Amino acid sequence: MEKLIKVAMGLDKADLVLKGGNVINVYTGEIEVADIAIKDGYIAGVGNYCGNVEIDMKGKYLAPGFIDGHLHIESTMLSPSNFAKAVLPWGTTTGICDPHEIANVCGEKGVDYMINESKTVPFDAMFMAPSCVPATPYESNGATIDATGLDKLLDKCHGVGEFMNAPGVVYCDTDVMNKLKYAKQRGVVVDGHYPLAGEKELNAYIGAGITTDHECVDIVDACNKLRRGMYVLVREGSATRNLRDLFPIINNKTLRRLVFCTDDRQVHDLLTIGHLNNNIKIAIEMGLSPIDAITMATLNAAECYKLNDRGALSPGKIADIVVIDDIYKFNVLEVYKNGKLVAKDGKALFDASVIDCKDVRNTVHCKDIQESDLKLKLNSDMVRVMGIEPHNVTTKSLVQKVSVTDGVYDFKDGLSKICVVERHKNKGNIGIGLLKDYNIKCGAIAVSVAHDSHNIIVCGDNDRDMAIAVNEIKRAGGGMTAVHNGEIFDTMELPIAGLMSDKDIDYIASKTAALNEFAINTLKVNSEVEPFMTLSFMSLVVIPELKISDKGLFDYSSFKFVDIEVEK
Amino acid sequence: MEKLIKVAMGLDKADLVLKGGNVINVYTGEIEVADIAIKDGYIAGVGNYCGNVEIDMKGKYLAPGFIDGHLHIESTMLSPSNFAKAVLPWGTTTGICDPHEIANVCGEKGVDYMINESKTVPFDAMFMAPSCVPATPYESNGATIDATGLDKLLDKCHGVGEFMNAPGVVYCDTDVMNKLKYAKQRGVVVDGHYPLAGEKELNAYIGAGITTDHECVDIVDACNKLRRGMYVLVREGSATRNLRDLFPIINNKTLRRLVFCTDDRQVHDLLTIGHLNNNIKIAIEMGLSPIDAITMATLNAAECYKLNDRGALSPGKIADIVVIDDIYKFNVLEVYKNGKLVAKDGKALFDASVIDCKDVRNTVHCKDIQESDLKLKLNSDMVRVMGIEPHNVTTKSLVQKVSVTDGVYDFKDGLSKICVVERHKNKGNIGIGLLKDYNIKCGAIAVSVAHDSHNIIVCGDNDRDMAIAVNEIKRAGGGMTAVHNGEIFDTMELPIAGLMSDKDIDYIASKTAALNEFAINTLKVNSEVEPFMTLSFMSLVVIPELKISDKGLFDYSSFKFVDIEVEK
Repeated sequence: MEKLIKVAMGLDKADLVLKGGNVINVYTGEIEVADIAIKDGYIAGVGNYCGNVEIDMKGKYLAPGFIDGHLHIESTMLSPSNFAKAVLPWGTTTGICDPHEIANVCGEKGVDYMINESKTVPFDAMFMAPSCVPATPYESNGATIDATGLDKLLDKCHGVGEFMNAPGVVYCDTDVMNKLKYAKQRGVVVDGHYPLAGEKELNAYIGAGITTDHECVDIVDACNKLRRGMYVLVREGSATRNLRDLFPIINNKTLRRLVFCTDDRQVHDLLTIGHLNNNIKIAIEMGLSPIDAITMATLNAAECYKLNDRGALSPGKIADIVVIDDIYKFNVLEVYKNGKLVAKDGKALFDASVIDCKDVRNTVHCKDIQESDLKLKLNSDMVRVMGIEPHNVTTKSLVQKVSVTDGVYDFKDGLSKICVVERHKNKGNIGIGLLKDYNIKCGAIAVSVAHDSHNIIVCGDNDRDMAIAVNEIKRAGGGMTAVHNGEIFDTMELPIAGLMSDKDIDYIASKTAALNEFAINTLKVNSEVEPFMTLSFMSLVVIPELKISDKGLFDYSSFKFVDIEVEK
Repeated sequence: MEKLIKVAMGLDKADLVLKGGNVINVYTGEIEVADIAIKDGYIAGVGNYCGNVEIDMKGKYLAPGFIDGHLHIESTMLSPSNFAKAVLPWGTTTGICDPHEIANVCGEKGVDYMINESKTVPFDAMFMAPSCVPATPYESNGATIDATGLDKLLDKCHGVGEFMNAPGVVYCDTDVMNKLKYAKQRGVVVDGHYPLAGEKELNAYIGAGITTDHECVDIVDACNKLRRGMYVLVREGSATRNLRDLFPIINNKTLRRLVFCTDDRQVHDLLTIGHLNNNIKIAIEMGLSPIDAITMATLNAAECYKLNDRGALSPGKIADIVVIDDIYKFNVLEVYKNGKLVAKDGKALFDASVIDCKDVRNTVHCKDIQESDLKLKLNSDMVRVMGIEPHNVTTKSLVQKVSVTDGVYDFKDGLSKICVVERHKNKGNIGIGLLKDYNIKCGAIAVSVAHDSHNIIVCGDNDRDMAIAVNEIKRAGGGMTAVHNGEIFDTMELPIAGLMSDKDIDYIASKTAALNEFAINTLKVNSEVEPFMTLSFMSLVVIPELKISDKGLFDYSSFKFVDIEVEK
């Protein structure tokens, strides 16, 4: 503290002074031409300063480092250190990260890995303890985090991750209540996840101490949440893009309660349009004042998540600073993290170091699959079919007559078969269903990223290729693979929990592009769907209408398992 | 938590529902017609609810309880429970209270008394641990709170009180640094007090972790503080009224960083214009939107002081609710604290119970004063004189020729004599000075409220009456007294630390009015000054120009003691 004060007073020289830039002031909405003096990674003063190193910032704009209010690193398939390399050049210096994907595979040890690897890079990943592991009792996952486990995680986490189990909250499930009480005792932030909550349910959910929501897709829902005291996280992810729809809720009154987030973002977007900068840029393009947009990405997020040490360029704050060419063009030129230059001209200036952690490797535990394991035996031919909806992760629940030979589904009607193979504890569970409009031909696709329990999902038009694909995923310890006429085309290995690669973003981007292209061009998958990502959501039973887990077909409207045969 | 959720869900009835009022929403700036359901003192839901008791609020406006960002209870001369009775009818339900007056007399035990008595009434006094006790080394007070003592106080206090020792901060005084480090370790709010801070000093002061300031008297100073990240507390006290001057700083960007406070408020004002409602009312009269003004008095203060459980009418918040007739007329009709009606039509609905605490009684410790103790011996006749400045607490430092007989000041020139008698530890210190333009005749006035160390200040035109007055204060265990021609006119006893009465506001108001009237009408004190209050500030050595403590005359410009005789 004394060191900072002495620099502020001009009695000692700063380590670094960024001279004469246009300093964006999120407290007053002003832009000041001023020097920023940095000492030991903190801002010592804003004004007129000298330093051991001085960098001319004349004409450039300096903003506080961007804070992403809610994201899942796993969704990028990048490990934490490679994730940091990918987002820092875009100006994101802090992320509120919910590691619930890896927690569903590896439990607490998965969270530990995320925390530990994040510490090796100049990016502040604030991890939220996952609140809903497993997400539902309708599938088999790798670990359970109950209230006691959550409380233990809170020793090392910043708060509690998105409370997807909204019914558990509003109907006072015992374990849920205990989780919320532990959070309250610690005074930590609890993130919400409650799309289209009803009036009374919203009161109950907020009264339980849940203070944020990133699932608003329309302005009515967003306004309801703001009125009752929630921070609304305006999301611009890869699959879910809500900013344009929610833009009308931003005004001078509500601004302070609005935060930007990305939630799930894929590598292609990270390479092209970027990260939280993209939220800011879109908001500016839509007419929001650049300083207001930056305020949402900085001060508001800091206040929402009680991060008193960041969110503004003022004395005593961590020196996380984004250098921008122009507040309308909004190109990020340089990024300083803790007072050090860590990214320049779109490139990170540090190496990622993926931790070789046994706890999160070799997580695929199932027996070798035989063709016969995937056979769909039918006593009748009127069956329930999952109907793909292009550009969406929901399905339609269809009923149709299918082709059956000797009591076994025979593929002759052109549907695809989809199976979910339990892969955590070698339980032997295989859920089998049929998929319409996926249209795969002469092959199979398999992936170990399958929300939320991350079993192996495989889809194909013949059992042989499907078995090969599953066994290849097993061999790789998790990943994405495509098989054509008995031959493995290629596999992107995801050795970290079956969810993340240990390679960098360029590798992942080129591999996924090649696999997706092969799926569409050679395997003839419907070009209206994203071959792998669509499959990853077919096991997410908490959204409509007909989904599949390792335990079987799940009907959302009745919220229970159903037999594939209608008349059974 | 379950009980609240069940009421929110409509599964259980609320204890109380305020039906159909105009609910002021500080999150969105809207007014909603809605019911507020209350359970166990908390808001369970806002919407459409049923309760065991339902009260029609149609046409009335409901605001969150007002939060005063900075105040000293002692300044009202009311004990904490009587203070609560006085302010609750005006809508103030929470106060950030700095007990540094009583701490200067009784130390930690004084703070304990304030905390304990406050617990007996439906008012949330959040006490800040006094940071500067004693305020300066230039006077004798009753107790010292060093860094260790402050840390101990933080076990029971909400944060650290106004850091008046700004030089100690910016020049890294060791004890000051330790205090700030303890505060930082605990993550508590540290209040500032730094009028007209320079640019570098302000950076240093804020970088040290001090986040508020209530001493802004002009917009330049206020803007500087906002820019560097401070919350600015807009004060409207009795002596210091800054709201009108600071009004131009309020805009859509800065609003969230602005909080209302009263600091020091006297009983006359409390009885007539009220408390924090007066800040709101003035702001509205000046053109601020009523909801913005209410937001400053509620949500902003809650955010500034990290009070997550209040500041808005939303689920999970404490049910502190102010019922107002009209948002422009702004008359407070009823006040609910923790869901109970505690004030109606300007009257508190509960009794004050002053704790009979030995630790804060009998705090006047000095020997009986003789006329001879107060003699001012002079070897020369050119002396320094304190020049009263009407309507102000500063003085002018004057030099003039005075009347001396046999080496003793003889009063023949019409000046008043002012003495400060140490009263904490019977040290025998008496500081003696001369006061111009106070004009007291044929008597003396004495008071044990004397900033910041609260020794006895006495002023008169003859030593006999002055000695009588001091001895009367001693007899009373502290208070305010007026003596005329050897007779005590009346004494308002302030038995609690010599600062506060154990009587109610009406008693204090009538006694002080009578004493002030007597001082002006009978003792002929200059009618341009407030006889008692002006004296109370003559010992405040940290403001210009010439002041007096028990240790002697103090010159502000050289910041040291000076002899009364110019040539000595």
